[in-house]
Amino acid sequence: MHRVRFRDPAGSVRQGNWDDEEITFANDSYDPEEVDILPPCEPTKIVCIGRNYAAHAEERNEDLPDRPLLFLKPPNAVAGHGDTVTLPAERYIEHESELAVVIGEQCRHVEESEAEDVVAGYTCFDDLSNRDDQDEEQNWVRGKAFDNAAPMGPVLATPDEVPDDARIQLRVDGETRQDSTLEHLIFSIPELIAEITQYMTLEPGDVIATGTPEGVGPLEDGNTVEIEIEGIGTLEHDVRQP
Amino acid sequence: MHRVRFRDPAGSVRQGNWDDEEITFANDSYDPEEVDILPPCEPTKIVCIGRNYAAHAEERNEDLPDRPLLFLKPPNAVAGHGDTVTLPAERYIEHESELAVVIGEQCRHVEESEAEDVVAGYTCFDDLSNRDDQDEEQNWVRGKAFDNAAPMGPVLATPDEVPDDARIQLRVDGETRQDSTLEHLIFSIPELIAEITQYMTLEPGDVIATGTPEGVGPLEDGNTVEIEIEGIGTLEHDVRQP
Repeated sequence: MHRVRFRDPAGSVRQGNWDDEEITFANDSYDPEEVDILPPCEPTKIVCIGRNYAAHAEERNEDLPDRPLLFLKPPNAVAGHGDTVTLPAERYIEHESELAVVIGEQCRHVEESEAEDVVAGYTCFDDLSNRDDQDEEQNWVRGKAFDNAAPMGPVLATPDEVPDDARIQLRVDGETRQDSTLEHLIFSIPELIAEITQYMTLEPGDVIATGTPEGVGPLEDGNTVEIEIEGIGTLEHDVRQP
Repeated sequence: MHRVRFRDPAGSVRQGNWDDEEITFANDSYDPEEVDILPPCEPTKIVCIGRNYAAHAEERNEDLPDRPLLFLKPPNAVAGHGDTVTLPAERYIEHESELAVVIGEQCRHVEESEAEDVVAGYTCFDDLSNRDDQDEEQNWVRGKAFDNAAPMGPVLATPDEVPDDARIQLRVDGETRQDSTLEHLIFSIPELIAEITQYMTLEPGDVIATGTPEGVGPLEDGNTVEIEIEGIGTLEHDVRQP
């Protein structure tokens, strides 16, 4: 089942289902083109994972971490399907396609074996990265936490809909830049949930962005980004840069 | 004026005034001992500043940054006056007394000259730090963003109540550990607001923690921490460590 948050033509925020051609809520159905698709959740925090695919760590000339490399994006980073993201001016920005896990219940100290119980679903995520600042910072705040640095969506898919070896692809203006599968994740989703919740409580709607495969590259004013994950669908967003 | 968020004896959350001996809301007044004092705001994010006092950078053997060193604490880090914070088990934890700025309105691209317009007030802040993990991490997430790593309060004071050279002190079980003044801030509050809002929108209730002076030190199970800032008052919290 593909859950979708959207604003209906009367302006009400709804959580409905998105089947192939149609969004439905209660007795109403809509053409996806006629409603505003919203981010699939409202996180209090986004916990991101760095260097979780070996081929990406290699292209960035970084060692593989011996435990998950964590960083944070706050709520101001959220953006949704169909949105136009304004990038920081005069900075070198790259796209990073990722699978994001959305949390379904408040949780702490979750065991790996019980991690699937706290997952609401999966969505597509673009970990937009400002390399000019990131490469100079101790903590990646200017580099990763700028406004709308976390486009996500379009829907929340249940984990059983997404194969363990699901293909993840990113295209810029139709050209494929990233093409890998979730099999290459170094730390698994249960391992990430267990590690993070040793330190902090996750809330319903919180997001874990699981890291990007190889093929990251530059974005420029006017580009359209598509991130497609097998079993979920395609997140599309535009960028502008002043 | 000292604003205070509290839960009244009926369980309602109120924003009242705390005068010397009494908390008032509408027609009611309370003994501060008979209500639960809550954190003075509900931030969507806490933007913290590292190494903003030269003497603290020196005691940590760190260079002074040429622009503010930023890091983030998410909402799970919030704790309040009178609370008992459970520290991460088997970790070396230090206190860091700080002045925190609470934002009063949604803002972006704020000029230094207009920064005071977006400030709701000042409060006391303990930037609890897990050094074992912090000293090993690229981003200080396990080190700084654990649950209740940001006790703050007890009140929100208006900026005019806090002198530019206000004394900031921290005591552990009555023993003074930190004793400095706000004059020693390297980057001023307007400079911090201008820098942060170049990259991200601040929301009402968001917090900027302005950095700690020298004298940071260890906390242990059962300690009581007091942070007193001239013009604001004294934040008190206990710690336990399993």
